[in-house]
Amino acid sequence: MSSDFHIKREIRILGIDDSVLLNEKVMVIGAVYRGGDWMDGVLHSYITKDGLDATAVICRMVLSSKHYSQIRVIMLDGITYAGFNVIDTEKLYRETGIPLIVFMRSYPNFEKLKSALKYFQDGEKRWKIMEKAGEIYSIAVEKGRSSIYILKIGVSLENVGKIIRFSSTRGNIPEPLRVAHLIATGIILGESRGKA
Amino acid sequence: MSSDFHIKREIRILGIDDSVLLNEKVMVIGAVYRGGDWMDGVLHSYITKDGLDATAVICRMVLSSKHYSQIRVIMLDGITYAGFNVIDTEKLYRETGIPLIVFMRSYPNFEKLKSALKYFQDGEKRWKIMEKAGEIYSIAVEKGRSSIYILKIGVSLENVGKIIRFSSTRGNIPEPLRVAHLIATGIILGESRGKA
Repeated sequence: MSSDFHIKREIRILGIDDSVLLNEKVMVIGAVYRGGDWMDGVLHSYITKDGLDATAVICRMVLSSKHYSQIRVIMLDGITYAGFNVIDTEKLYRETGIPLIVFMRSYPNFEKLKSALKYFQDGEKRWKIMEKAGEIYSIAVEKGRSSIYILKIGVSLENVGKIIRFSSTRGNIPEPLRVAHLIATGIILGESRGKA
Repeated sequence: MSSDFHIKREIRILGIDDSVLLNEKVMVIGAVYRGGDWMDGVLHSYITKDGLDATAVICRMVLSSKHYSQIRVIMLDGITYAGFNVIDTEKLYRETGIPLIVFMRSYPNFEKLKSALKYFQDGEKRWKIMEKAGEIYSIAVEKGRSSIYILKIGVSLENVGKIIRFSSTRGNIPEPLRVAHLIATGIILGESRGKA
C-alpha cells in the first residue's frame, strides 16, 4: 500500500491494547473503529507475558478477522505488550499489508529499556526488533496540547497526523486505543480503570 | 428518582448484553456510555445458563461499579438473559435506584415463551417475574423506521423516547446495547458477528 493513500474521516482503524499482567497469558484486545466515532467490532487473543509471540499472534488475529479487508491502519500503544513482548512492526506490516502507527505518550526511555532487557537471555534480539522499528517522530496533535510520539510504517507522517486527529475525538488518545484499553481492563479486572 | 428527570444528550447509560450460550456460565457485559457517543467503561460478570441469578448478579455488578453514581438509566436487551434467566426489573430498579428500559426489537411471542417455560420446574415463577415487568409500549423512534417495543420502570414514556433517540446514533439500536453486544461476542467468539 502506498504511503500516501487518501485518508477519509471514517477510515477503519484497528486499535490494539493489552490487559494487565495477572497471568502468564495476557489478553490483547483489538477494537475496530470507523475514525474516532463508531466501533465496528472487537477481536481478542492471548499473548505470553515477556514472551516473543505478540507479532505472530496479532498477525493471526488480524488476518482471520472478518474486518481484515476493511482495516486501513493498525494502531499500537507502544511497541512492547504484556511486559517485554516486543512487536516486530516491519513483520506485522509485511504479513498483514496494513500500515502501522505506534502511539506513544512520551519519548521512550531507552536507557531504562536497555537495562531491563539485560535480564533477558535474548535481550539483544529484543533490542534489535525495537531498533529496526525506525525513527521516532513527534507530533503536535492540537495547539496547546503536549506532543505525542509515533513510529510508523507504510504511511506518511502527514497522514499519521490526520489519522490521529480524526480519531482522537474524545481526548488526546485515539478512540480505537482508548476503547481497546477500556475493554481489556473491563474484561480482566471486572471494571475498566485509569487512563488508556 | 422521579420519572420525569431531565434528559441530557450525554446522559450516562449502562447497556447490558450477554454472550452466546457456550458454557454453563455466560458472560454479561455492561457498556457505560455517555448518550450515544462515548464509552466511559466496561463491566463484566457471569450468570448461569437458564438460571435465576441474573437479577442479583447484575445488581452487584452495577452497585460495585465506580460508575454507579453517574449511571442514570440501565438498558436491557430483552428481559431474559443466558437462555431463560429472567430479570426481575422491579427488583433491579429497587435495589439500584436506577430507572430501567428493556429494549425489544419485536413484540414478544408470549405463546412461545409460555410453552418453553413448561420445561422448567419453576416455569410459573419465571412467568410471574416476566408478567410483573408491566406494560409493553411501542415506540416509533424515527419516521419510516419500524417501531421498537419497551418495558420501563422509573422513567416516563416521553423520556424513554428521548433516551433512545439520543443514544441510537449509529442505527436503530442504542449504542450502549450495540457495543455491549460487540464486546460480549468479540470476547467469547474471538470476533463479534451479527446484529446486536
